[in-house]
Amino acid sequence: MQKGLSVSDSDGSTFAPLVVLELAPNTKEEAVEWLLKRIRDKQQDGGAELLVEKLSPEDQSTEKDNPNVYMVGASMRRLLFGAEDVGLFKEFNDGTMRSFTCANRHNFKEFQGDGDSFLSMAECQYIIKHELDTLRAKGEAHVPGYPKMKLYPGKSVIRRIQSKGILVQIFPLHENEELKRLSFSWYKQFKLSFQPLDDIRHYFGEGLALYFAFLEYFTFALIPMAIIGIPYYLFDWEDYDKYTVFAGFNLVWCTVILELWKRLSASLAYRWGTLSRKKAFEEPRPGFHGILGFNPVTGREEPLYPNFKRQLRIYLVSVPFVLLCLYLSLYVMMIYFEMEGWVLMIHDEEPTFWTGVLLFIPSVIYAVVIEIMNLIYRYAAEYLTNWENHRLESTFQNHLVLKVLVFNFFNCFASLFYIAFVMQDMGLLRQSLATLLITSQILNQIMEAFLPYWLQRRRNKKAHRRVIKTLADKELPLSDQVKLEADMSTYLGTFDDYLELFLLFGYVSLFSCVYPLAAVLVVLNNVTEMYSDALKMCKVFKRPFSEPAADVGVWQLAFEAMSVIAVVTNCALIGMSPQVKSYFPESDTQLIMWVVAGEHLLLAVKFILTFVIPDIPKNIQIKLSRLEFESLEALKKRILEKIMGKIIDNPCM
Amino acid sequence: MQKGLSVSDSDGSTFAPLVVLELAPNTKEEAVEWLLKRIRDKQQDGGAELLVEKLSPEDQSTEKDNPNVYMVGASMRRLLFGAEDVGLFKEFNDGTMRSFTCANRHNFKEFQGDGDSFLSMAECQYIIKHELDTLRAKGEAHVPGYPKMKLYPGKSVIRRIQSKGILVQIFPLHENEELKRLSFSWYKQFKLSFQPLDDIRHYFGEGLALYFAFLEYFTFALIPMAIIGIPYYLFDWEDYDKYTVFAGFNLVWCTVILELWKRLSASLAYRWGTLSRKKAFEEPRPGFHGILGFNPVTGREEPLYPNFKRQLRIYLVSVPFVLLCLYLSLYVMMIYFEMEGWVLMIHDEEPTFWTGVLLFIPSVIYAVVIEIMNLIYRYAAEYLTNWENHRLESTFQNHLVLKVLVFNFFNCFASLFYIAFVMQDMGLLRQSLATLLITSQILNQIMEAFLPYWLQRRRNKKAHRRVIKTLADKELPLSDQVKLEADMSTYLGTFDDYLELFLLFGYVSLFSCVYPLAAVLVVLNNVTEMYSDALKMCKVFKRPFSEPAADVGVWQLAFEAMSVIAVVTNCALIGMSPQVKSYFPESDTQLIMWVVAGEHLLLAVKFILTFVIPDIPKNIQIKLSRLEFESLEALKKRILEKIMGKIIDNPCM
Repeated sequence: MQKGLSVSDSDGSTFAPLVVLELAPNTKEEAVEWLLKRIRDKQQDGGAELLVEKLSPEDQSTEKDNPNVYMVGASMRRLLFGAEDVGLFKEFNDGTMRSFTCANRHNFKEFQGDGDSFLSMAECQYIIKHELDTLRAKGEAHVPGYPKMKLYPGKSVIRRIQSKGILVQIFPLHENEELKRLSFSWYKQFKLSFQPLDDIRHYFGEGLALYFAFLEYFTFALIPMAIIGIPYYLFDWEDYDKYTVFAGFNLVWCTVILELWKRLSASLAYRWGTLSRKKAFEEPRPGFHGILGFNPVTGREEPLYPNFKRQLRIYLVSVPFVLLCLYLSLYVMMIYFEMEGWVLMIHDEEPTFWTGVLLFIPSVIYAVVIEIMNLIYRYAAEYLTNWENHRLESTFQNHLVLKVLVFNFFNCFASLFYIAFVMQDMGLLRQSLATLLITSQILNQIMEAFLPYWLQRRRNKKAHRRVIKTLADKELPLSDQVKLEADMSTYLGTFDDYLELFLLFGYVSLFSCVYPLAAVLVVLNNVTEMYSDALKMCKVFKRPFSEPAADVGVWQLAFEAMSVIAVVTNCALIGMSPQVKSYFPESDTQLIMWVVAGEHLLLAVKFILTFVIPDIPKNIQIKLSRLEFESLEALKKRILEKIMGKIIDNPCM
Repeated sequence: MQKGLSVSDSDGSTFAPLVVLELAPNTKEEAVEWLLKRIRDKQQDGGAELLVEKLSPEDQSTEKDNPNVYMVGASMRRLLFGAEDVGLFKEFNDGTMRSFTCANRHNFKEFQGDGDSFLSMAECQYIIKHELDTLRAKGEAHVPGYPKMKLYPGKSVIRRIQSKGILVQIFPLHENEELKRLSFSWYKQFKLSFQPLDDIRHYFGEGLALYFAFLEYFTFALIPMAIIGIPYYLFDWEDYDKYTVFAGFNLVWCTVILELWKRLSASLAYRWGTLSRKKAFEEPRPGFHGILGFNPVTGREEPLYPNFKRQLRIYLVSVPFVLLCLYLSLYVMMIYFEMEGWVLMIHDEEPTFWTGVLLFIPSVIYAVVIEIMNLIYRYAAEYLTNWENHRLESTFQNHLVLKVLVFNFFNCFASLFYIAFVMQDMGLLRQSLATLLITSQILNQIMEAFLPYWLQRRRNKKAHRRVIKTLADKELPLSDQVKLEADMSTYLGTFDDYLELFLLFGYVSLFSCVYPLAAVLVVLNNVTEMYSDALKMCKVFKRPFSEPAADVGVWQLAFEAMSVIAVVTNCALIGMSPQVKSYFPESDTQLIMWVVAGEHLLLAVKFILTFVIPDIPKNIQIKLSRLEFESLEALKKRILEKIMGKIIDNPCM
């Protein structure tokens, strides 16, 4: 752990600040005191046993600064016990990854001396987050000073004050030195090399590192498709035989790369120790509410909400709402096509400059309307998913992802489906595909990284012009750094990044047989995406808490579903092509039968491939079963010792 | 545990015999003595610490009887430690199922006094089997007296002498009292009631109990389909609209029942304690061979066989062989259809009595040829799978099941597919379906239960006429019972029983829209099947060792695959019906499009249903997570105690 900065504890000893707690400026004094006491209390007394200190700004020049900012840290001893508590996996002396235990600490590879540099700062911050999250109310009936903020024994204190707005934000601090080193090896030098995944994981945690690993893997996996696609563009091949070959290759390739990704992600997760990490018991999410009762699993008092009510809300409100939105989106699309036709008619009748301009109007309106609809829908989806009142953050996320995914898929691809299968205009399809792909890529990169970066820079310059000027490359004082970081935007997780990749994957796979160049464009986009995502993580956003992750979760499923849909669309497109039709001049029926048969065969092959390729590479399987075997043997040894003990204790048993 | 019979130990104390070991009659004396010593040796000395005694026949009248028959038992103390060793789950005082530990034994519900009746006889026999299987060679280089039977440290002794033919058979003894009670409640009284699943599990173990549970569930699940199917037969409905409705209902119903079965089987497995049972490290199967090396998981010396060689054997030999057999089967089918056509032609030209008889000849020949092919293929599949040299019994079984399954599916249904989709003769399809279904049912029941039962009875009567006559209802002397049971056939596992159900499921689901009566026939068959299977388990076969099982394994997948194929065939059949065709008089293309769209929709619904219905019922999920939560809490408590211990031991850390 880097000890760049330090603050003084109330005892006078200094500690490295790791996490920042920002309370609302008008928080009552007694609530603050109570909170600090609970954080500092010994674990035996039900506290978190962490170090916490108020941030003392060097200069109180700006009056509007929030005075209620606290720094949290911990002693190394506390952090090591916390590491055992969260079930952190570290590398053992024999090269395997094992759950860290304090008793065994000297058998871990990187443990030297007191273990000062054993845990990375991200890990320390994760441990502190976990310890704060599991700081529970004991006898308090409510937050002191706020009789309305009810507490009950076992309720997470931090979650309650967060959902009630007392806790404005909680975020881990950046390490400037480390960040500089990371950003240099990551995106500052334009060289051809893999991303520094281990360093990313070290700084940002496994969840984000897996996203960047996926982004990189996805880019490399598309290169063969891009290479095969280039001659189609260069030589203007309009030969459908060749397109069929290309599509067939694509479909099998998509399946294979998704399967291989599972293996790669398992390897990475094994290396990072998250593969065999057991999930701790999940706490209710902050917004969850219900009637106070006893949790059937823990036996603790906590709000309960009957499952059937949630199911009713999902099936009677959310599902119809989503369907309605899809219908609406379809309706808007139809209006767009009508407008298009109408404008085209006007232009054909009387081609002037103004009617030429008019030609672009429907597309622009449609693009704007889609963006607005996406935005509104996103809010509605979040509201609805919140209203469904899921107990766990993970189920909440899954339901939200599903809602947003379906709608975005529909919005992005409905017009293409319409052009392909209703209008059956392959030329227009290719053109729309290219337009959509290129504009969405450019817009995304600007909206997602460069615009926030520019805004961030402007804000920084304005607020800290003086500081930055004088200190140039030297370190900022702690209070300034905290203020700087507190003002940065919050990274809301990998959701939007994965969604973007998902839609790009759709452009590549769904209509690959009409636009082979899509893969090339996506590869180019991904290369810049890697840089812009790296930039935004390092420069634009607050440091996120590291999240342990063993895989990309629900996205694996989403990508696989997309590849199934791709089989259907590609087969249909091939079946509709005039060249293929010419093979069956006498009857359409036969043609369709062949196409359907081919489609079923491809789906069967996909299914079999999914089964035949093991999800975890053999060598990691062996390592995992060795660990399991060892623990079984240890158990047996214990039984045998017990038997022998029994014989000595009680020979007549 | 019932102590009906007993033999004297070499120390003079008596013990209840549980398992019979039959060695080859000509086994060398020193090998026998070595084996008995190893079985009796204390566990500290690497023995199994079991009781074993030679069976002393009351009368040595029959000279040809094998003298090398040994009875194995164990002290109650040994069995309880064995129960901990195999990870047996028993009911705890609070009603949950927990892994048995000797230290905690008094907290288990049925543990009274010394625990004499705590373990069922089946459990005791399973424990003894496990202890014998894990009896390992220590320093012996070969089996004493047989220099060619190599041993190496850690090799299972029993597996080696079994694969080399010294050990003829090993089987658990029946309990006559218990068996009488079970068979009375199971099949002797013709009353309408559920099967006594808990008693079956108690006597035969979880694997078999799950088979009977599945058989019963499957029967009940088909009743709605049977009821809806009856009016079609009674009123001779030839209306395809109605058939379409019926098929649609069937397809969704098949998915739902398979999903619900998963839940039911999880409930049963939870009740029986096998749901959260961890699999012990699997030993290599007896026939596995290779070059001696070190197992990467256990570090033990054992034969190793490179995986790529196995893969080569599978993909270069087994897969082509299976495909060749399928082609052969197709070829035979074509010959059959040609013969049929030829015979029909002869009969049409000159209809006499003899040509009338001739009409049946092709079907008879085809049926006989199919049976012969099935038999030969079964041997070939076993030989090939053996040759593939799988390390584990479970992978061996999976590969064998897959091979046999594919071929049987093909043999049973290829002719029906041909009639349905090439000849497109629905009348003939219905007729063939009925003939195949009824004859295969009748033949199966006879071949599988009644014929063996009759043979068994005859054999028993011949061999033990005197004994049975005089003792009538009294107990047989032990030696006679052992001899009687040693002569019984060996039950080869649930494979054939599941295969039969799988094929019946095919008859019901694949062509349900042309022959709604199939469900009725299958229900009737299953009712008698329950009785005949019960009869064969109790009267015809040696008692099998109980096998812990948490689900029906690979069969769940097989049934699900069948239900997917059923969607495709039913949609195709509906599309081919003249009534549906009449809706699209102008174009076949549109008809096919609609059918394909419907099929895709149904498949999507199936897929979504599979996701939406949770595999484990909520209440069991809660119980499982409570157990997990408790163990996590215990861990945390241990950490906390350690912290406090550390503080006392070493306050400066």
